[in-house]
Amino acid sequence: MKIAVIGGGSSYTPELIEGIILRATQIKADEIVLVDIEAGKEKLEIVGSLAKRMIKKSGLPITIELTFDRVKAITNADFVLTQFRVGGLDARASDERIPLKYDVIGQETVGPGGFAKALRTIPVILDICKEIEQYSNDAWLINFTNPAGIVTEAIHKYTSVKAIGLCNVPINMKQMTATILEVDRDNLNMSFAGLNHLVYATKVFVNGEDKMSTLIERIAEGRNMNMRNIHDAPWDKEFLQALNALPCPYHRYYYMMDEMLIEEKEAAELRGTRAEQVKVIEKGLFETYKNPNLDVKPKELEERGGSLYSEAAISLISSIVTNDHAIHTVNVPNNGTITDLPDNVVIEVSCTVNSEGPQPIQVGKLPPELNGLIQQIKAFEQLTIEAAVTGNKQKALLALTTNPFVPSSKVAKLLLDEILEVNQAYLPQFSMKALV
Amino acid sequence: MKIAVIGGGSSYTPELIEGIILRATQIKADEIVLVDIEAGKEKLEIVGSLAKRMIKKSGLPITIELTFDRVKAITNADFVLTQFRVGGLDARASDERIPLKYDVIGQETVGPGGFAKALRTIPVILDICKEIEQYSNDAWLINFTNPAGIVTEAIHKYTSVKAIGLCNVPINMKQMTATILEVDRDNLNMSFAGLNHLVYATKVFVNGEDKMSTLIERIAEGRNMNMRNIHDAPWDKEFLQALNALPCPYHRYYYMMDEMLIEEKEAAELRGTRAEQVKVIEKGLFETYKNPNLDVKPKELEERGGSLYSEAAISLISSIVTNDHAIHTVNVPNNGTITDLPDNVVIEVSCTVNSEGPQPIQVGKLPPELNGLIQQIKAFEQLTIEAAVTGNKQKALLALTTNPFVPSSKVAKLLLDEILEVNQAYLPQFSMKALV
Amino acid sequence: MKIAVIGGGSSYTPELIEGIILRATQIKADEIVLVDIEAGKEKLEIVGSLAKRMIKKSGLPITIELTFDRVKAITNADFVLTQFRVGGLDARASDERIPLKYDVIGQETVGPGGFAKALRTIPVILDICKEIEQYSNDAWLINFTNPAGIVTEAIHKYTSVKAIGLCNVPINMKQMTATILEVDRDNLNMSFAGLNHLVYATKVFVNGEDKMSTLIERIAEGRNMNMRNIHDAPWDKEFLQALNALPCPYHRYYYMMDEMLIEEKEAAELRGTRAEQVKVIEKGLFETYKNPNLDVKPKELEERGGSLYSEAAISLISSIVTNDHAIHTVNVPNNGTITDLPDNVVIEVSCTVNSEGPQPIQVGKLPPELNGLIQQIKAFEQLTIEAAVTGNKQKALLALTTNPFVPSSKVAKLLLDEILEVNQAYLPQFSMKALV
Amino acid sequence: MKIAVIGGGSSYTPELIEGIILRATQIKADEIVLVDIEAGKEKLEIVGSLAKRMIKKSGLPITIELTFDRVKAITNADFVLTQFRVGGLDARASDERIPLKYDVIGQETVGPGGFAKALRTIPVILDICKEIEQYSNDAWLINFTNPAGIVTEAIHKYTSVKAIGLCNVPINMKQMTATILEVDRDNLNMSFAGLNHLVYATKVFVNGEDKMSTLIERIAEGRNMNMRNIHDAPWDKEFLQALNALPCPYHRYYYMMDEMLIEEKEAAELRGTRAEQVKVIEKGLFETYKNPNLDVKPKELEERGGSLYSEAAISLISSIVTNDHAIHTVNVPNNGTITDLPDNVVIEVSCTVNSEGPQPIQVGKLPPELNGLIQQIKAFEQLTIEAAVTGNKQKALLALTTNPFVPSSKVAKLLLDEILEVNQAYLPQFSMKALV
Repeated sequence: MKIAVIGGGSSYTPELIEGIILRATQIKADEIVLVDIEAGKEKLEIVGSLAKRMIKKSGLPITIELTFDRVKAITNADFVLTQFRVGGLDARASDERIPLKYDVIGQETVGPGGFAKALRTIPVILDICKEIEQYSNDAWLINFTNPAGIVTEAIHKYTSVKAIGLCNVPINMKQMTATILEVDRDNLNMSFAGLNHLVYATKVFVNGEDKMSTLIERIAEGRNMNMRNIHDAPWDKEFLQALNALPCPYHRYYYMMDEMLIEEKEAAELRGTRAEQVKVIEKGLFETYKNPNLDVKPKELEERGGSLYSEAAISLISSIVTNDHAIHTVNVPNNGTITDLPDNVVIEVSCTVNSEGPQPIQVGKLPPELNGLIQQIKAFEQLTIEAAVTGNKQKALLALTTNPFVPSSKVAKLLLDEILEVNQAYLPQFSMKALV
Repeated sequence: MKIAVIGGGSSYTPELIEGIILRATQIKADEIVLVDIEAGKEKLEIVGSLAKRMIKKSGLPITIELTFDRVKAITNADFVLTQFRVGGLDARASDERIPLKYDVIGQETVGPGGFAKALRTIPVILDICKEIEQYSNDAWLINFTNPAGIVTEAIHKYTSVKAIGLCNVPINMKQMTATILEVDRDNLNMSFAGLNHLVYATKVFVNGEDKMSTLIERIAEGRNMNMRNIHDAPWDKEFLQALNALPCPYHRYYYMMDEMLIEEKEAAELRGTRAEQVKVIEKGLFETYKNPNLDVKPKELEERGGSLYSEAAISLISSIVTNDHAIHTVNVPNNGTITDLPDNVVIEVSCTVNSEGPQPIQVGKLPPELNGLIQQIKAFEQLTIEAAVTGNKQKALLALTTNPFVPSSKVAKLLLDEILEVNQAYLPQFSMKALV
Repeated sequence: MKIAVIGGGSSYTPELIEGIILRATQIKADEIVLVDIEAGKEKLEIVGSLAKRMIKKSGLPITIELTFDRVKAITNADFVLTQFRVGGLDARASDERIPLKYDVIGQETVGPGGFAKALRTIPVILDICKEIEQYSNDAWLINFTNPAGIVTEAIHKYTSVKAIGLCNVPINMKQMTATILEVDRDNLNMSFAGLNHLVYATKVFVNGEDKMSTLIERIAEGRNMNMRNIHDAPWDKEFLQALNALPCPYHRYYYMMDEMLIEEKEAAELRGTRAEQVKVIEKGLFETYKNPNLDVKPKELEERGGSLYSEAAISLISSIVTNDHAIHTVNVPNNGTITDLPDNVVIEVSCTVNSEGPQPIQVGKLPPELNGLIQQIKAFEQLTIEAAVTGNKQKALLALTTNPFVPSSKVAKLLLDEILEVNQAYLPQFSMKALV
Repeated sequence: MKIAVIGGGSSYTPELIEGIILRATQIKADEIVLVDIEAGKEKLEIVGSLAKRMIKKSGLPITIELTFDRVKAITNADFVLTQFRVGGLDARASDERIPLKYDVIGQETVGPGGFAKALRTIPVILDICKEIEQYSNDAWLINFTNPAGIVTEAIHKYTSVKAIGLCNVPINMKQMTATILEVDRDNLNMSFAGLNHLVYATKVFVNGEDKMSTLIERIAEGRNMNMRNIHDAPWDKEFLQALNALPCPYHRYYYMMDEMLIEEKEAAELRGTRAEQVKVIEKGLFETYKNPNLDVKPKELEERGGSLYSEAAISLISSIVTNDHAIHTVNVPNNGTITDLPDNVVIEVSCTVNSEGPQPIQVGKLPPELNGLIQQIKAFEQLTIEAAVTGNKQKALLALTTNPFVPSSKVAKLLLDEILEVNQAYLPQFSMKALV
C-alpha cells in the first residue's frame, strides 16, 4: 500500500500524516512518498523530517520517502494525493489583487481568481494524469488542488484516471451542524448537492426528523457556519428560510456580493489579501516544523485553515480500502445525478463509497432557486476548462463574462488581459496560441 | 372571424388596425372588438373612432365595436389580443424608479421592474383566460403584454388556453440584419432561441451561406442593432466574435450591466425614466388621434416604439388562418425544444406555423455561454410566476435574489418590500396572504 | 414500534415472525398486528397462533394481535407490510391458464398474468394507502404484493404514502453469486438496476476486482442462478458474455420465450400450473402450522418459494430504524436514477438506506441491450397502471399489445376480453365504466 | 448544379429523371452523373440511354453522364443520391428466406433481414462518405438505401457528411390519407414521428380540424393504407382507436406478427419471396427500357413499388435549392427532437426544410404505447450499427436478440451464424475479426 503526495512539501502534510497514523488499522499504508519540485526543496526537507519523526513516534511500519522524481513517486502507487499550488502564494496574491482593481471579488477558488488558478493548474494536473495512466493506471487520484471541482472535471474529460475531487467544506458544514444541533456527527444525515465551493445541504435529518428549520434559526441567531478564510457576513434569516437549504460558506460571495466586495477591499488595504496573510502564517509554521523535538502535528497548523482536510481524505481512502459503504461528499462526474446538468461535468455530491470508489446518491431535479445559480457557475466552469486546455482566448473571455462577479464583457476583457499577462510564465497554452 | 383586443384603448391600436387592413385578403376579419376598463373610457373612444375611420377608408366589410364588457368581447372570438398594462404608465414609472435607488437596473420588462409588472399582470391574465376557457375555448390568445415570456408561461401552467406570446424583438432583429446584410428579409434565414428579451439569433444564413461573422463585424462597426427604448451601448467586437451568436438588444442589460446602470441613473435624472418620457409622447399621440380627419396610422406612432409589432401579430394570425407554414419567432412551451430547460417553461423560438398554431423547430443543447445565462433567468422567471400566482413572499424573495441585477439577498428584501408596498392596490394575492 | 401485516393470514407470515425475532435488538418491535379479510379467518387464526407460539418461545416483549379491522391495524403503525393476494390462488391459476390458450406465456407477475393481477390489486392497495394517509401518514409501507414494481408505481403516482416495493429476487441473486464465487455476501458488491422481475446485476465486484466474467462462466457451466418457481432453462454462455451483465431468473421469459412457453404448456398439462401446485403445498403447510407444539418456522415453508423474503424485509426495516446506510435493492421512484426512464416511474435499484428511507445510487444511461427491453416493459407497466386506475379498456388493450409475450393486437384483444370476464368480481373499475 | 446518382443503373432511375424534368424550373440541374459498379454495366447502359432520351425529349439543357468512377461522379456534386443494393436481389432473397427457417419474419428492411442488409451496406456507404468528405464536402447526400434509418445513423455517427435519409412511406401515407379524407394533399397537415419503417402519423388535421378518428374509421372499413410490397392484413379498429395515431404499413410486422409470419411462409412457398418476384418484374422492366423509342417513364415501373420516391426526393432537393420552408418527413439526427431518445440517433420526423437542410419540428415525449416499441427498435438499430462498423459478433448477437421478431437468444445465435456465413463475401469487417 503506497501513497504518493504531490506537493508533499506543503505545510498541510503533517495533517495528512496524522490522519494516516490515526487510521492505520484501516488503511494499512506501507509507504508514503512526498514529492515536490526542486524549487521547494527546503520546505520538502523540513516537512519530510517532521513527517518521519511523527511516524517514528507512532511505531508504525511505514516508510517515508522524499523525492523530486514525480514518475518514481507515482509508479505503483495505490493512492496519489495532489496538494500543489502552481505559482505558489505569489500567484494566489495576484489572483486576489487583480479583480479588486475592477471592483470585482478576488478569491483564490471562485470568480476570476479561481479562473486564473484553473488556467495555471489544469495543464500540470493533466501531465500528472498522463504519468498515472502510464505508471499506476489503477491508482486513485485524490485531488485537493483548487479549484477542486474544475480541476477534477478537467481530469475526467481528458484522461482515464480514477480521480476524486475532495474539499473540506462539506465535512466542516456537517461538523458545525452537529455542534449547532448538539448531536453526534454519525447520527446526523445531511444530503449535499451542488458544485465545489457552491454546495448546498439540501436535507438535514436527525433520527428521521427534519432539522433544517432549527438549524437555519440557530445560524440566523449567530451560530458559526463559516470557514476561517471567509469573511463572516451574517446570513439573512428570511432568505435562508425561503431557500430551505443550507448554503456553504462560499455562497456568501454570491448571495452577499456587495458587502463581501466592500469587506475584501478594506481588508486588502488594511491587512493584505488572504494570500499575503497566509505567507506570514506559513513562515511561522515552517519555523515550528524545524524543531527537531517536534513529533506531532503542531496546534498552530489549525490557524492555517484547512480544518478536517486530513480527516476527509483519510476516511475516504479508508472507505475504499475497507469497502465500508460510508457516506462521503466528494467531486465526481455527474452522469445524471443532478438531472439538469450534463453527464460529463463534475459535481459535489453525497456518495456511498465502496471498494470501487464513490457511488453518487441520486439527487434528481433541483428547485429553480438552486438550479439557476448552479447552472450559471457550471457554464463558467465548462468554459474555463475549455480555455485552460486549448488556450483559446475566446473561450476564456466567455468564461469570465459568464461569471456573476463580472459586471460586463468589457470588464471581462480587461481582467483577462491582465490575468494572462501576469501569469504568462505559467500559461504556455496561451503563449503557444499567441504564436499562431 | 372575430378579433377581440383587450386593452383596446392602447395607443398601439391604430398599428394593429393598419395591419388587419393590409392583410385583409388573408385573415378575412369580420369583426374587431376593442375592450378596455371603464377608467380608460376616453382613450378607448378616441382610439376606437380613429379605428373606425381607418376601416371606413379601407372599404372593407369589417365592423368595429367598443365595449367595457370583457366577456362579451371574448365570447366566440377567434383571436384574442392582449395589450393592456395593469396600473398604467404610473406603475411602470415606479418599476423603473424603485430599483435605481438600490443601484439596480430599473426596466419595465426585465429585472425587478419586470418582476413587479409580472406580479401585477398575471392575476389579471389568468382571469381573462378563465373567461376564454368558458366563452371561446377554441380561441387563440396572442399575448403582447410584458413580460411576455413570463406571462405566457403562467397561462400555459395554469390554464388550457391556446396562448402564443409575441414580441417585436425577433422581427426587428431580422429586419435590421436584412438591412445590414443588404438582403431581402425573405432570403434571410435566422434561427432564434432563448427567452423573451433574452433571445439569441444562433444562425444567420443567406442562400445557404453563413453570414454570422459578417453581421458581427458590421454591428461592431456601428451598424444599428437596437430598439428605440434601450440605451445604445456599443457591443464589443471580440465578445460578439467569441459568442458567435447575435444577442438581442435587451442583452445589453446583462452583458454591459455596469454602463447600462450608469446611463439609466443619469437619464432618470436628466430626462426622466422611459415611462415618464412615454407619458408625454402618449399625450401627444392621443391629441393627434382626435383629429376627425385622420384616417390612417399617424407617423408619430413610430416614435412610441413597438416597431413592427403589428406586422408580427398580423402575419402570425395570417399563418394560422392560411396554414402557410411560415417561420415566426414566438413564445411557446418548451416541451424539449431546448434540451436543458424543463418541458413546462415557455421559450422564445423559431416556429413553423400552420393552422394548429406554432410548431417549434428543434434547438437541442445550447453551448454553455448561452445556457448559463438562460438557465439563471429562467429560474428567476419560474420563481416569479410561482410568487405571482400564490402570493408567496418567500418565492418572491428567491426570485429577486436569483436575478443577476440584484447584488445580494439583502437588497432583494429591500426591493421586495418596496415593490409590494407601492403596488399594493394591484397585488391582492399578497394582501390576502398577509391576512392568513 | 408497531408493525401491521396486511394479508397476515398468508403462509409466509412465520418467515416474517422469524425475521423479527432474529433482528429483535435492532428493530425493537413492540406490537405486530396481523390483519386479513373475514373470508381468510381460518388461515389467520392458524398462522396467528403459530406466530404467538414463536414469539412466546423467543421470550421477547412483543404482542401479536389478530384482526379483520384494517383501519385499526394501520392506525399508528410504524411499518405496514402488504402480502395479500386479491382473488387468492384461484385467480392466480386463471392468470396462468388463460394466456396459454393463445400460445402466450402465463405467469403470475409478468406478461398478461401480471397484467391481470395488477388490475385486481391496484384498486385495493390504493384504498389501503388512503387509510395510511389518514391514520398513520408517517408509516413506511413495505409492499411485497406482486407485481411489486407496478403496484409500487401506482402507489407513488396516486398517493403520498412512503412506499418501498420489495422483492426477494435481488437478495437471492446476491446469495447465489456469493455461493458461486465462494465469498461472503458482505464482501460482494453487486450493482442492481432495472425493473422488478426485470432487474440486472450490472456490476459484480469482490475486493475491488471485477468478477462478472467468472460468474458468467460458472453460470454457463450450470451453477444455480434460478428461483424455485421458474423453469431452469440454461443460459447461453455467448449471450451472457455479450450482455456482460447478469439477468435475473425471470429474464428467461424474455430471452428464451420459445422454450419457456413450450415448457409451461407441458407442465400445465402434466403437473398443473404453479398456482395449482402451490395450492397443494399450502394445504400441507397449514396442516403443519396447526400443530400446537410447533413454535418455530417449519422447514417445509422453504419449498413454498419466497426464499430470503423475510431477511430482505426485516433487514430493510432494520436499516431504516438504525440508520445504518446499508445497501438494499428495492423498488423506488426513478427520479432520474436511470437517465432514460421518466422521473415518476418505479425502478428496482441498489439504494443506500438510512432513517429517511432508501436513497437510490445513481445508474445513469443503460446500454441499448438493457435499455431496449426495460423501456418496452416500462411502457407496458405504465399503461397497465393507467388501465387499472381508470378502468379504461383502450389503455388496457395498449398495455397488452405492448407486452412482448403477445404476438398481435388481435390476440391482445382476445386476452383482454377473457381476463376482464373471468376477473369481473375483482374489477369494479371496469364494470363501472361499462355502465357509462 | 450537379447531381450524382450512385447505383445509377437501378430500375428506379427513370422515376428520378422524370422528377428532375418536372421540377426543372426549381432545381435547375445542369449535370446528372449515373455511376454504378462494373458488374452492373449492362443495366447502367440501358437505363442511361433511356434517361438521355427522356432529357432530350424535355428539351432541357441537362447533360447525362454514365461512369464507373465513383470519385469522378462525386467530385463537386451538389447532391449525391444513393440507391444501390450490395449483393443485389440475390442477397435480398437470402435476407427474406433465412429467417423463415426459424419461424421468424423475413423482410429486407426490418428484423433479421434488415439487420443483414445493414451489415452489408454500412461499410460501403461509409467508404462513399469518405469520398464525399474529400471531393465534395459541402454536398448533400440523399440516402434512399435501406434500411434507410440505420444507414443514415451510421453516416452521422461516423462521418461529417450532410446526409438526409429518405423513404417514400410518409409521402405515401399522406397521399393515401388525402385520398381517404378527400382533400388536397396541401391542405392536409400530418405530423410524423418515429423511426424509418416505424413511423407514426401522430396528428392529422384539415383546416385546423382533427381528422384522426375519421381516418381510423375509414381505414378500419377497408380504405387502403398500405404499400405494394406488404401483405395487406387489415387493421383492428379498436386497436387503432386506442392508439389514436396512424401506424405505418410496416407496423403490421410488429402489431400483427403472427398473421404476417403465416402469410410470409405461405407466400414464399407459393409465389416466392418478394425479392424473387421483383427479379421477374425487373427483367421485364429492363426489356421495356431497351425500346429505343421509349422516351418517358413507362407505366410498368409503378408495379415495381417505390411509389412517389422520385417526388419525395426531388421536392426535398427543391426545398433546399429554393429555401421554401416546406414540410418534409425525413431521417435526421434526433438531437432532442424526441425527448426520450439519445441525441445521436437518427429518427424519421416532419421537418421544415430550408437552404441549410431539414430542421426537425419538435416532438417532445411520446406516449408509452409508441415509446415502448420505438425504444426497443432503436436499441436494435444502435447495436446493429455498432456490429456493422466494428465486426463485433457480440454486438451482432445482442442486436438480433433485441429484435422483437426473434423469440430467444438461441434463435438469434442460429440466425447470426447463418447470416454471417451466407453473406461472407460482403462482410469483410467480420472476416477480419475472425482472423484475430
